[in-house]
Amino acid sequence: METERTRSAALLPCFPPAAAAIATMMLLGRGLDARDNQTRQMQDAVSNVEKHFGELCQIFAGYVRKTARLRDKADLLVNEIYAYAATETPNLKVGLKNFADEFSRLQDYRQAEVDRLEAKVVEPLKSYGTIVKLKRDDLRATLTAKNREAKQLSQLEKTRQRNPSDLHIIAECELQRATLDATRTTRHLEETIDNFEKQKIRDIKNIFSEFITIEMLFHGKALEIYTAAYQNIQNIDENEDLEISRRILRKDEEEEEEDDEDDEEEDDEDEFDATKEAFIRFR
Amino acid sequence: METERTRSAALLPCFPPAAAAIATMMLLGRGLDARDNQTRQMQDAVSNVEKHFGELCQIFAGYVRKTARLRDKADLLVNEIYAYAATETPNLKVGLKNFADEFSRLQDYRQAEVDRLEAKVVEPLKSYGTIVKLKRDDLRATLTAKNREAKQLSQLEKTRQRNPSDLHIIAECELQRATLDATRTTRHLEETIDNFEKQKIRDIKNIFSEFITIEMLFHGKALEIYTAAYQNIQNIDENEDLEISRRILRKDEEEEEEDDEDDEEEDDEDEFDATKEAFIRFR
Repeated sequence: METERTRSAALLPCFPPAAAAIATMMLLGRGLDARDNQTRQMQDAVSNVEKHFGELCQIFAGYVRKTARLRDKADLLVNEIYAYAATETPNLKVGLKNFADEFSRLQDYRQAEVDRLEAKVVEPLKSYGTIVKLKRDDLRATLTAKNREAKQLSQLEKTRQRNPSDLHIIAECELQRATLDATRTTRHLEETIDNFEKQKIRDIKNIFSEFITIEMLFHGKALEIYTAAYQNIQNIDENEDLEISRRILRKDEEEEEEDDEDDEEEDDEDEFDATKEAFIRFR
Repeated sequence: METERTRSAALLPCFPPAAAAIATMMLLGRGLDARDNQTRQMQDAVSNVEKHFGELCQIFAGYVRKTARLRDKADLLVNEIYAYAATETPNLKVGLKNFADEFSRLQDYRQAEVDRLEAKVVEPLKSYGTIVKLKRDDLRATLTAKNREAKQLSQLEKTRQRNPSDLHIIAECELQRATLDATRTTRHLEETIDNFEKQKIRDIKNIFSEFITIEMLFHGKALEIYTAAYQNIQNIDENEDLEISRRILRKDEEEEEEDDEDDEEEDDEDEFDATKEAFIRFR
């Protein structure tokens, strides 16, 4: 990034007239304030991102945990529906079992949602802790360089004032070197800010896009699965189950009455065997 | 429900021949066992429903609670995104704010999901506690009637054996009345079982259908809302924000350098005012 000031500093000849050197130093004096400002800005920006990304990370992690708890409850529901279905009449049993199969499949997708959110949202936000640490190191180094340069410049100024003759030229050259160092540091700081901003915006866009995509994938699957599950419930033929219940109850009575007689209707009973087996568990 | 046995009992004339009365009593003796069986079956069925509906109710209630906890976390996320967006550059700020608006809208639908599940799934399952209680009362009454009838029948049998002459005819009539009572009780028991089964299957179908419909409504809304939210994130113009950051940093330096001079570039600064105001919070 080329500002007016850095460009004019770079254009200074190695042996400038004294007036030019004084002007440069006045300019650098003001430039130091500007760079202090930049450094402070950068530190505040890093602190701000550290704070908010940290909080976002914690809340997203909480969101993922609650999603996992919801999956746990859904898993319990699946098991209970299986347990209940096993005690029911054939149609209800099959309908509930098929529903539980679908609902269980949805929990696999919820688990995938949890894993993906962990990997693509929580982890990248967590890794910002490391990024922020590196940025802090970078800032500290830049700050150290800036202080060293400021000290150098003020010493050179004193030397120039105390020795207005021979040492003058040597001092001018050292002043120019220090000016170039300061320019380099400023440019590095600007690049650091720029890269940090660029990466931050990209990462935010990426993290939120991933979040939305993962959530949409799950909701899409949920719609698909519930559509099938709805049919499983609607298809339960309640009249057939009621007829089966009635026939089994009647059959029980007839069987007890027939206990004293010969088992002449053995064949007739076979047709109830399958449904009765299910019904026995019902009792 | 007309079974062979109840139909033949109803067809008995008021003054049947003694043989027919004896046959009827033998039949009723065995019928009592069958009805004991029915009563036991009914009691088991009620206990089974009581157990499983109770457990389903508890787990569904847990599922609803966890959904509410997920909404709580999502609400926290909305607030944190607003707080972070306020510190950011204009494009990022608007993009994040719009996303938070949509995500917040989704939480309203999640709240509606929670309320609906509570009203249409958890409450109906809970109300089964009352239904089961009424069924128990019904069963107890039927059981009491059956015991009374059994006692009556055995007393009538003793009376008939001790007084084979005059009292015979009176006893026969009382026997027939007792038989009709027993038949009525049996029919009532059968109807009770039938209604209970019918209501149970209908309620299960209804409760699970409601669950699926409520969940689908939410997932459908989620897909719709996330589609809009995705655009909010994708539309964040990172280059414009970076350019704004750069111009503001540069402007800061220039401003500090211009502090000593006259404010001749006042007009030029105005164009940055809007974006700068946003950026100041960023520092």
